Amino acid sequence: MDFPSPQQLKHMSADEINRLIPAIRQRITQVVSQTGGHLGSNLGVVELTVALHRVLDTPNDRIIFDVGHQCYAHKILTGRNEQMESLRTFGGLSGFPKCSESVYDCYETGHASTALSAAVGMARARDLQGDDYHVVAVVGDGALTGGMCYEALNDLGSNKTPLLIILNDNQMSISPNLSALSEHLSNLRTSKGWLGFKRGMASAIHRLPRQGKKTYSLLRRMRDQLRNLFVHDNFFSSLGIRYYGPFDGQDEPLLEKMISRALGMNEPILLHVVTTKGAGYIPAEQEPENMHGVVPFDLESGIPHHQGAEGFGHRLGFELTQLAKKDKRLVVISAAMVSGTGMSEFARAFPERLFDVGIAEEHAVTMAAGMAKGGLLPVVAIYDTFMQRACDQVIEDVCLQDTHVVFLMDRGGLGGQDGPTHHGVFSGNIFFSIPNLIILSPRNDEQAVKMLSWALYDNQHPVMIRYPKQQGKENLKYPVSDFRLGQWEKLEDGQNLTLVAQGSMVDTAINVKQILSQAGYHAGIVHANTFKPLDEIFLKNNQNPIVVIEEQQHLGGLFSAITSWCVENCLVLPVKGYGLPDSFIEHGSRDDLLNSLHLNADSIAKSILRLLEGK
Amino acid sequence: MDFPSPQQLKHMSADEINRLIPAIRQRITQVVSQTGGHLGSNLGVVELTVALHRVLDTPNDRIIFDVGHQCYAHKILTGRNEQMESLRTFGGLSGFPKCSESVYDCYETGHASTALSAAVGMARARDLQGDDYHVVAVVGDGALTGGMCYEALNDLGSNKTPLLIILNDNQMSISPNLSALSEHLSNLRTSKGWLGFKRGMASAIHRLPRQGKKTYSLLRRMRDQLRNLFVHDNFFSSLGIRYYGPFDGQDEPLLEKMISRALGMNEPILLHVVTTKGAGYIPAEQEPENMHGVVPFDLESGIPHHQGAEGFGHRLGFELTQLAKKDKRLVVISAAMVSGTGMSEFARAFPERLFDVGIAEEHAVTMAAGMAKGGLLPVVAIYDTFMQRACDQVIEDVCLQDTHVVFLMDRGGLGGQDGPTHHGVFSGNIFFSIPNLIILSPRNDEQAVKMLSWALYDNQHPVMIRYPKQQGKENLKYPVSDFRLGQWEKLEDGQNLTLVAQGSMVDTAINVKQILSQAGYHAGIVHANTFKPLDEIFLKNNQNPIVVIEEQQHLGGLFSAITSWCVENCLVLPVKGYGLPDSFIEHGSRDDLLNSLHLNADSIAKSILRLLEGK
Repeated sequence: MDFPSPQQLKHMSADEINRLIPAIRQRITQVVSQTGGHLGSNLGVVELTVALHRVLDTPNDRIIFDVGHQCYAHKILTGRNEQMESLRTFGGLSGFPKCSESVYDCYETGHASTALSAAVGMARARDLQGDDYHVVAVVGDGALTGGMCYEALNDLGSNKTPLLIILNDNQMSISPNLSALSEHLSNLRTSKGWLGFKRGMASAIHRLPRQGKKTYSLLRRMRDQLRNLFVHDNFFSSLGIRYYGPFDGQDEPLLEKMISRALGMNEPILLHVVTTKGAGYIPAEQEPENMHGVVPFDLESGIPHHQGAEGFGHRLGFELTQLAKKDKRLVVISAAMVSGTGMSEFARAFPERLFDVGIAEEHAVTMAAGMAKGGLLPVVAIYDTFMQRACDQVIEDVCLQDTHVVFLMDRGGLGGQDGPTHHGVFSGNIFFSIPNLIILSPRNDEQAVKMLSWALYDNQHPVMIRYPKQQGKENLKYPVSDFRLGQWEKLEDGQNLTLVAQGSMVDTAINVKQILSQAGYHAGIVHANTFKPLDEIFLKNNQNPIVVIEEQQHLGGLFSAITSWCVENCLVLPVKGYGLPDSFIEHGSRDDLLNSLHLNADSIAKSILRLLEGK
Repeated sequence: MDFPSPQQLKHMSADEINRLIPAIRQRITQVVSQTGGHLGSNLGVVELTVALHRVLDTPNDRIIFDVGHQCYAHKILTGRNEQMESLRTFGGLSGFPKCSESVYDCYETGHASTALSAAVGMARARDLQGDDYHVVAVVGDGALTGGMCYEALNDLGSNKTPLLIILNDNQMSISPNLSALSEHLSNLRTSKGWLGFKRGMASAIHRLPRQGKKTYSLLRRMRDQLRNLFVHDNFFSSLGIRYYGPFDGQDEPLLEKMISRALGMNEPILLHVVTTKGAGYIPAEQEPENMHGVVPFDLESGIPHHQGAEGFGHRLGFELTQLAKKDKRLVVISAAMVSGTGMSEFARAFPERLFDVGIAEEHAVTMAAGMAKGGLLPVVAIYDTFMQRACDQVIEDVCLQDTHVVFLMDRGGLGGQDGPTHHGVFSGNIFFSIPNLIILSPRNDEQAVKMLSWALYDNQHPVMIRYPKQQGKENLKYPVSDFRLGQWEKLEDGQNLTLVAQGSMVDTAINVKQILSQAGYHAGIVHANTFKPLDEIFLKNNQNPIVVIEEQQHLGGLFSAITSWCVENCLVLPVKGYGLPDSFIEHGSRDDLLNSLHLNADSIAKSILRLLEGK
């Protein structure tokens, strides 16, 4: 089917729209069944996306999708349907809004809770420059647990910059919300007090025979006053934002009507729209949590074609569950990522010791510091890229007070198909200069378990354990010894040079060694399992030239750390470092990305051979 | 006067308390008039602090002061009165809570909005371990604009961990609040609807002669229902937190009563306490903004003994005001630091282009990105240490989208008397590995102005300009040329070595050079005014050994950046770097701190001489 453009959408009849909506839904389901991606959230916002593009004059008017992974219908309707098969593949369409893809994408998102702030900024730019386009932020109820949203509402409600906020309430973020706000939203959803009351009142007014003007106006005033009591005294109105809703998010004509009305009002308006995650595709409606982010699956049954190997998180979650049976002080903190970080089993076994605070990384980290001060052993399970959200809290609450908090940082390294907002490539570099902090990178889950045990029971300082989504295979042949801080693992002896590889790049180093040995060079392999501190004894005793291989930013990374330490101590210097370039890296499979960056074993080996033979 | 301990406080009569309160106030004013420090906020919370220590069983019960600079009465009452004269001096009492000083300090604060999260963590630790102490968080209305507070309330209101929150509402944070929440608080303060209504209702009930039980209970039910309408439907109650107030924060007996009652309830309670900043000291009551953080002053008049020299911020604020007259796109964004960052003049001249978002750095930065996307030229004026709060937003919103946002980062370097939470020593290192970002360090305000102009008009990328509180003097003798990116300034030629100094350390380098020349060595001086990018041409052409001097973390700092780049390019290597150690640095004057760290000119020169002569 050909999908209409936003311009064509505006001229379609109600019947045509009624046929279009299921077609979009079918297209999304079919594409995602092949490419993997975000399913439930995209199915939920089809009507909303259609209604927005019918009412708004895009791209002149601006839509900012919070988080952004719910933009598939938007992409289909803005000229990108034919490229949908390339979704999330290297060189193909991004799974998130991308300004370089289309003029209809006005702002890039990926991490939650940013859309309101960006929209406030854009709307103010509009007003100061005398422009007159509309700015609409589409924000999920999950994203609304992030403190940034509140900061933006607080600013907006005071300064009254005209702006339309669509609260896309699908009644769960990734997992069901456990926040006071979600209870509040649920009350708003279910009571519908005002709507019912209003209908009753209107009918009462009409039933009164020949009322004099005075009585009528009195009744109206009464109604308006009572309305304030019912509707206006909620979270949003307390922050000065006019609230309307809740509305059925699967009722496209209603959404059009309400969006039109809201745009006519010259102030910040919030429309509370209730959508169903996975709407229209039964497997996704029934298991919204499992069908949030999916791998390719069977269209009929919703069953994935292959299960991803269980990664570090799952193994660490299992280990924590075992440890928690013996140690009552052990607690796990998650920011809306219990399942993603492998902590579901712990959550089932110890619900009272699993604190899922919603998308609220700052609170998560400082709460962990408070828990440590109170005598608990807190473990924060988080994605590496989201650790950036709590940078200040790691510094000021955890490290400055030297509290005993352990961070399990999943998805450290290239995140793959989700692209630049989800690569876990900065945290090591960012936190390297923070005192009291220990930063570790296991090469496989067995080592991660040993590090966790060490971090909890043989250590009193804050520790970050950073690991990628999946472990390599080559390194499994090297047995894992007990962890000792600042003592790197010598995996292979060598004569000509030593490959110092970090965590996820040990497998690459093993392959590099093999290629080099075919060319007659004998490289040693050392696993730099601790980024901070460095292994000073190894560096002091080392006689070979060092080549560093790491899956994090080269600038300010392991190569840089080793090099400056060696220079200061007049030691044999590293000759070369292979890490990520000083640029943001697009989406694609990890292999595609490493190839494109010349960070695969072949490219690295060739480069080393050039160095060796150039000498 | 001898001040009582918390234990003694509990046995004092009302008369004694009435005499104690003004004595504490006098003591605070007298100390701060000598040492400088925070005045207004401390004078406002004297009654509250006394009431807390009378009702609570400290240190078993825990008080967490948000921000923490309002802890002077607490320090006086917990055995530290005699050390108050050493407040904020090197080796003396900290101006913030400090666990190593006293068992009564249970958690360290400094950056705003963390106390609720820490208190939630501590209270949960208590509950999980079956302990039964109270946890109290004292949070200002200013701190409440930070998103973390909302994240904590949202979590707390859902999980109902028992906890007492004192909202210390002094009706302004550092400058008067411009937020929707502050309007909401103001409504709560002024309407007093429920309190008045309640009194009326009670008297009506009592006036009814011999009511039957039924009528009485009906009236009570009516009252309770109406009460929900009046009092419960506010911001806090929408998040599931029971709200009581407002109460007069200068009425100590009332505070005791309300605190006692709140502690008796087994759930999270918020007491809204209205205090007067500067209460009891007329100059501070009259000019609360000027008497927030003060230098030593005349006790009689409140007039400071000396005015601090006007720093970079003031000069940049003036420049921005001039530029804004010609360029309508120019806007300034502040996170409750308009005056501190020197932007008051801009605010007066262009109130509609100065956006003070409150203590909300995350929102500030993402809003700036939105503004840039909307065609404005946003300048974010912020303290270097608070930039940590928006690390993720700098990466994901500003740098990933390569938006043209300029950050003016004041107090870069050792912050002095405020101590570890306020030193601006991490931001350079943290952001060095972020792509698209340019990081500059001017040596004086004239150069800062040239950098600003370049950043705004000869550049399209995000730029951070980091500068210390006050500029040095020695470097002023070297004229400032127009800024060119990645071209360091050669200030002095030299034969034996080149001192590469960053921003605030140029003066030190000049003094080092002088000492070295007395010993017969001729050092060149190069000012590394751009940290990112490095001056690759200089490094390529340089023949002298380099010594790096920087006022940021040595790990991952300029020395490290230069060294690894030189190694990669097979160039002459730096021999030594002088920067901040891998530990948190306490409070004290900058000179005291640099001396203690051996980062003064003498120590550095001696160290270099040892190196030179060791060769």
